Amino acid sequence: MNYNEVFCEVNKLLKSHVDNGTVASYIPELQKVSPDKFGVHLCTVDGGNFAFGDSEEKFSIQSISKVLSLTMAFEIEEDKLWKRVGVEPSGNPFNSLVQLEYDEGIPRNPFINAGAIVIADVLVSKLKKPKEDFIKFVRQLSGNNQIDYSDRVAQSEKSKGHRNAALCNLMKSFGNIENDIDEVIDFYFDLCSIEMTCSELARTFLFLANYGKDPVSGNKIISSSKSKRINAVMQLCGLYDEAGEFSFKVGLPGKSGVGGGIAVVHPGKYSMVVWSPRLNKKGNSNKGVRFLEEFTSYTESSIF
Amino acid sequence: MNYNEVFCEVNKLLKSHVDNGTVASYIPELQKVSPDKFGVHLCTVDGGNFAFGDSEEKFSIQSISKVLSLTMAFEIEEDKLWKRVGVEPSGNPFNSLVQLEYDEGIPRNPFINAGAIVIADVLVSKLKKPKEDFIKFVRQLSGNNQIDYSDRVAQSEKSKGHRNAALCNLMKSFGNIENDIDEVIDFYFDLCSIEMTCSELARTFLFLANYGKDPVSGNKIISSSKSKRINAVMQLCGLYDEAGEFSFKVGLPGKSGVGGGIAVVHPGKYSMVVWSPRLNKKGNSNKGVRFLEEFTSYTESSIF
Amino acid sequence: MNYNEVFCEVNKLLKSHVDNGTVASYIPELQKVSPDKFGVHLCTVDGGNFAFGDSEEKFSIQSISKVLSLTMAFEIEEDKLWKRVGVEPSGNPFNSLVQLEYDEGIPRNPFINAGAIVIADVLVSKLKKPKEDFIKFVRQLSGNNQIDYSDRVAQSEKSKGHRNAALCNLMKSFGNIENDIDEVIDFYFDLCSIEMTCSELARTFLFLANYGKDPVSGNKIISSSKSKRINAVMQLCGLYDEAGEFSFKVGLPGKSGVGGGIAVVHPGKYSMVVWSPRLNKKGNSNKGVRFLEEFTSYTESSIF
Amino acid sequence: MNYNEVFCEVNKLLKSHVDNGTVASYIPELQKVSPDKFGVHLCTVDGGNFAFGDSEEKFSIQSISKVLSLTMAFEIEEDKLWKRVGVEPSGNPFNSLVQLEYDEGIPRNPFINAGAIVIADVLVSKLKKPKEDFIKFVRQLSGNNQIDYSDRVAQSEKSKGHRNAALCNLMKSFGNIENDIDEVIDFYFDLCSIEMTCSELARTFLFLANYGKDPVSGNKIISSSKSKRINAVMQLCGLYDEAGEFSFKVGLPGKSGVGGGIAVVHPGKYSMVVWSPRLNKKGNSNKGVRFLEEFTSYTESSIF
Repeated sequence: MNYNEVFCEVNKLLKSHVDNGTVASYIPELQKVSPDKFGVHLCTVDGGNFAFGDSEEKFSIQSISKVLSLTMAFEIEEDKLWKRVGVEPSGNPFNSLVQLEYDEGIPRNPFINAGAIVIADVLVSKLKKPKEDFIKFVRQLSGNNQIDYSDRVAQSEKSKGHRNAALCNLMKSFGNIENDIDEVIDFYFDLCSIEMTCSELARTFLFLANYGKDPVSGNKIISSSKSKRINAVMQLCGLYDEAGEFSFKVGLPGKSGVGGGIAVVHPGKYSMVVWSPRLNKKGNSNKGVRFLEEFTSYTESSIF
Repeated sequence: MNYNEVFCEVNKLLKSHVDNGTVASYIPELQKVSPDKFGVHLCTVDGGNFAFGDSEEKFSIQSISKVLSLTMAFEIEEDKLWKRVGVEPSGNPFNSLVQLEYDEGIPRNPFINAGAIVIADVLVSKLKKPKEDFIKFVRQLSGNNQIDYSDRVAQSEKSKGHRNAALCNLMKSFGNIENDIDEVIDFYFDLCSIEMTCSELARTFLFLANYGKDPVSGNKIISSSKSKRINAVMQLCGLYDEAGEFSFKVGLPGKSGVGGGIAVVHPGKYSMVVWSPRLNKKGNSNKGVRFLEEFTSYTESSIF
Repeated sequence: MNYNEVFCEVNKLLKSHVDNGTVASYIPELQKVSPDKFGVHLCTVDGGNFAFGDSEEKFSIQSISKVLSLTMAFEIEEDKLWKRVGVEPSGNPFNSLVQLEYDEGIPRNPFINAGAIVIADVLVSKLKKPKEDFIKFVRQLSGNNQIDYSDRVAQSEKSKGHRNAALCNLMKSFGNIENDIDEVIDFYFDLCSIEMTCSELARTFLFLANYGKDPVSGNKIISSSKSKRINAVMQLCGLYDEAGEFSFKVGLPGKSGVGGGIAVVHPGKYSMVVWSPRLNKKGNSNKGVRFLEEFTSYTESSIF
Repeated sequence: MNYNEVFCEVNKLLKSHVDNGTVASYIPELQKVSPDKFGVHLCTVDGGNFAFGDSEEKFSIQSISKVLSLTMAFEIEEDKLWKRVGVEPSGNPFNSLVQLEYDEGIPRNPFINAGAIVIADVLVSKLKKPKEDFIKFVRQLSGNNQIDYSDRVAQSEKSKGHRNAALCNLMKSFGNIENDIDEVIDFYFDLCSIEMTCSELARTFLFLANYGKDPVSGNKIISSSKSKRINAVMQLCGLYDEAGEFSFKVGLPGKSGVGGGIAVVHPGKYSMVVWSPRLNKKGNSNKGVRFLEEFTSYTESSIF
């Protein structure tokens, strides 16, 4: 399929779409981005690449990196990991603290902040040099040695990190954090600060569209079974409290970040990243969700 | 694929599996079933039928009927339906009342009791003779005019229905129930009382494995788009608070009932029903979930 | 002390007080009252009577009657009563349903709706003719045979009673309601519909200012120990989610109703009723609370 | 009244009382105490002193110190204080985190941990040398220069303080903590570590039984109005989630600590401290509550 044409058609459909979303404001660095940026990149498992708009511009991938840290932790810890973090959707957005209390420090899934902090704690425990080792892993996935953290973004988040410190302390009180809280939180914010372009990020997610194997390098990143499981977690928990609606309308596993990016995979077919900084009320890219909805309708892409 | 052989192999794998689940006890009628029953039936979209064990024995499909009532209501109300009920997973099992309060009477999805009661209310409003019209619809889907409600089961549930009456009253206080509460609740319990065999139920779900069209009769039941959406809701909300784990391990859209049945569909391939009355702590068939997990691993079936 | 003079002084202090409260609107009958009414009546235990403003005008006492039904049920059931209802403040105003769930159908205290419904259920079980017997009891307390229910108000509430029916059904599901739900709810709304003037209501509460004995008739209504306990429950739970602030500012046990009345007692000294229909955000009489605050400061009345 | 005789009589009544409470175990230092200790001391406002049992033995006053830090902060901040902390009972014991979330970082009252941490933050902001200045204040109240912190207890708590750090971080995220989190938490644990005997602590609380004025030294500690208000907060919030039952049974304002102490005041009459280390399920001294219940029944002491 010529996805370039599809992108143009879908973009036309969205012409009348007035984007009343707002750029994430809780950290100053994220607010500096131009709100009208819009980029798309799609990589097929057989080597196709299709781009649209600002697809070569770097943005802060934020929570999308939680898929990558989960992938690394799943490889290291295997099934033991799931004793420390669940795989269930989290329900009500304001419940994270009360659910941690109810579930005695076990986060519902690895994509809510509490869960991603546990994943960060696993990596701090198991990696010799967590920060260096993790970016090396991401560079391997992306086939690009230039991928890096943004210290400015990480610093900016650390200065506002009291809520995440609250989650981390609560989990520590239940014995579900092994390392020093400051070290875990710092690493967690580093993870979130990675910057990529749409094309780099789509390339990075390609192994999840290909049952765990990177079709470009031929490297087996993870087993087919793990790849399916990570996709299942994305499907159920990848878009905060909009996961159900996203499944309903888009029908593909995906993960969003407050930087305005959304990565999706169609197993056996393609990985795709859209980026548009204005967020809807659920914290997901407003135009990104709309574009994906129209795109999957147009192409009749859906795992269902 | 010769699924008969697969069933035998998977059954062997489960030999050592000690089933410490317990039969649903909250209504007397459900407790009368023999706890060690086990049946499987799979229908492929191209006409294959594969059976195992007690697949020709009737059981109470209970909440599995919520997929059928949703299908009918979705056809009638179209997108208006989703103003009255959401499509998000519900999170914590004890939250239904507080979430109704928080969300002002709008249930999180059509498969939690509150949501299914709203669906029942829609059908009571729109159908001339709700009870007759609905069973006619189910008979059409199943190609079987003998399918019927169990008045004994419905009566048994009605006598214990105070919690559902609480949900219905709370939603009525928010204006999300149109009809008389007793009428809605009675119809809701009728819906849950339908009895089918594994083979009848797998046959009934076949249209969802075939993009909305019944491959046997050739009838178009619903549009492809609606079929995908119903499957998406099943994937995210179909197994109570075990939806995430079921997606993680089984990787197919499914719906369970406290009668011990689970119906799953693999879009483009097959529909399948397993039945085993002992339930795990989340209220889903213990052996049913285990069987499906091994079955999908063995056959490498997964939408992810 | 010449309370008439105090009333005038305190009223002057409130001259500049702009009352931005709003009359209860959830039932049409309550909205018919003139919003600027204001009455006060104080009865001392040694026979004094002091009145101010619209103190001889009837108003709907609403939840204030919960003190009277509790008194009657406490006499009948003694300590067994407290197995079915607690004496703890309820915390967050929106928690009643979730707390009933958490506490397995046991309401936190007899002054939240759920608790008063349990009290109504006790009376339905124990009284031969609940409606007649209860009003007879109130007439005895008040020394006034004209006190009566308002059928208009009761009817008006019954037509909007879905939320209370939800509470009642939920408690029934936990086995904490003995009688038919409709009968209990009807009686509950009857209790709330009683109409009195400030002077009648202050007179009715006098036994709680006099350790359980009516100083006018000389009748012992309840034991001193029970009288203290009912006052303790009023102190902690009598003003919905404003109980703490009321204790902090007014320092006397009291009970409010959405009709705009507040009854307080100063043990050993007086009972007092203020009435002003505009309610603050917590559902208590706006001017009533302000008046009591200034009154108790002025007279240095406080149990603390 | 000869309270010595009363103590003996009440103690006899409790002979058959089997104390199945357990000593606080969450910090090692508290567990070292002998569980069968029992002491009582009562100071009347006119100079009487009555002691019983181990009343001259030091124990960790723990949360009872929250009354003293509140007193100091109320003097310093006046009404501004109540913009940062409420005066309402907290309801459900497990709700502190979710209520902070719901109320945007404003704790329900100054006696739950979150509220006492805000009070500690106020003192850190306003006192030149918080730790020295506060103990000086306590020594003044008690007329005893030997009163001191226990560094062992404070250290022991600091090593387990993750949950309090979670509360503090969450409030900081809402802007309700001004100072560095570690400094506030450290000071908070210092406050809780003070050790006193029953007689020292009863003496310290005497000003609250005497409308703000210390009857021994003749010093006015706080205004009569503030004294009443602190007593009101104790009445509603002083015994965790047992405040209602304590009011119901004991009928006096009081404050408990997990060290097994309970301080109560009868305004105009006496202050009194009981100490017995075994705690009931609500975290209050098991025998202490029972003793106070029998004592106030016997002496017919009650503010109600």
